[in-house]
Amino acid sequence: MFEHIKIILVGTTHPGNIGAAARAMKVMGLTQLVLVSPKQFPCAEASARASGADDVLNNAQVYDTLTEAVQDCQWVVGTSARDRSIQWPQLNPPECALQLAQHPEKVALVFGREHSGLSNEELDHCHVLLRIDSNPDYSSLNLAAAVQLMAYELRNVYLRQQPSEPVELPRWERGVDQQAMENFYQHLEQTLIDIDFLDPDAPRRLMRRLRRLYNKATPCVSEMNILRGILSATQTAAKSNANSD
Amino acid sequence: MFEHIKIILVGTTHPGNIGAAARAMKVMGLTQLVLVSPKQFPCAEASARASGADDVLNNAQVYDTLTEAVQDCQWVVGTSARDRSIQWPQLNPPECALQLAQHPEKVALVFGREHSGLSNEELDHCHVLLRIDSNPDYSSLNLAAAVQLMAYELRNVYLRQQPSEPVELPRWERGVDQQAMENFYQHLEQTLIDIDFLDPDAPRRLMRRLRRLYNKATPCVSEMNILRGILSATQTAAKSNANSD
Repeated sequence: MFEHIKIILVGTTHPGNIGAAARAMKVMGLTQLVLVSPKQFPCAEASARASGADDVLNNAQVYDTLTEAVQDCQWVVGTSARDRSIQWPQLNPPECALQLAQHPEKVALVFGREHSGLSNEELDHCHVLLRIDSNPDYSSLNLAAAVQLMAYELRNVYLRQQPSEPVELPRWERGVDQQAMENFYQHLEQTLIDIDFLDPDAPRRLMRRLRRLYNKATPCVSEMNILRGILSATQTAAKSNANSD
Repeated sequence: MFEHIKIILVGTTHPGNIGAAARAMKVMGLTQLVLVSPKQFPCAEASARASGADDVLNNAQVYDTLTEAVQDCQWVVGTSARDRSIQWPQLNPPECALQLAQHPEKVALVFGREHSGLSNEELDHCHVLLRIDSNPDYSSLNLAAAVQLMAYELRNVYLRQQPSEPVELPRWERGVDQQAMENFYQHLEQTLIDIDFLDPDAPRRLMRRLRRLYNKATPCVSEMNILRGILSATQTAAKSNANSD
């Protein structure tokens, strides 16, 4: 999925974040991880947090500078938590994911250092900035969590592009048709009369409420079988009782 | 933001995930963290990964069972990576976030154990399941990453619309709480035994199906009164019958 999109982590301090980012990518179908001057890599902690996404980690390209890492990219998105003195064009996550996904050439999404983000020189490589909105009183979005959000948004784009296959449910898990519902409501009404809960001469508000309730439940075939079975068992109990009066 | 939404982590194995989940919540503005039988808590590793979200961590409520944790909730969403033999109604993340955010009463979003998820008994408390689509070849979404995605989607809802004033429903139109549902299920089970529909020695699959059905219906107070009334009338009919045998 989207092999033209590079996820670039610049100057990552905690190797655990590199592993977690690899996992976050793979779980959503992304594969192209690029590391620029990681503090420690390879590293056991990164592998541990990758938790089965070792292939993404092992295939990661490593560069000394962002300049080299984005050399073959046509469009580069930077991320920044800091307010910048120079205003940059900004995209929110869904807009950013859509533009990355639809780009016909190689593109990069660049995440900066945990504490200091991207330098001004690094931002010079970026065409736009991604802005992930957060709590104004606590905007400390974890690096791997940010990668996870964007990988998720990219997968959303991917899913929208796929023709969705209708889920084929087994017959007994399918919803019943309206005729079956009407038969049920008649059976229910008769049963409520049989157990002296419903007075056939009184207003019909009770049945209206019960219809709303069971319509909300949208019973499937097996559930309807259970409901009808309960009604029949109830009628049997009530009928024996009436006969014995 | 959204103080009516509880984020519940059940049986979390790695304390680091609890801390990371607290951070993921706070960065998007969520505050209500609930822990059910965490393996280790409080724990230095959780505090380290919370990275400034200590308040969310320290205010976390801790319970022994999910039953207690959701007792005051009107609507409960479970998360599950496993396919279930019984089909559950499913929501994707944006749908789920919208419905959680707009619910007028207390609601819960429940995340299971890292490796084994939620038990069937725990799923019995859930009205719907959240499904986060992922790479079919590697669906190992980290627990805190899943919390981050949903906290992000909830913030998206918050940003799109300051939640409109919750509709003030009359008391009898409000959803019942989980304690009322449990009382109903006990009453239902006993009634089914009384009318010889349920063999108390046979497996509990029937009650599980009925729970799914009535959870889908999300009964309000007046509907619950009707259901309980029907059960009582049924028991009266069955009891008179038994006496007359």
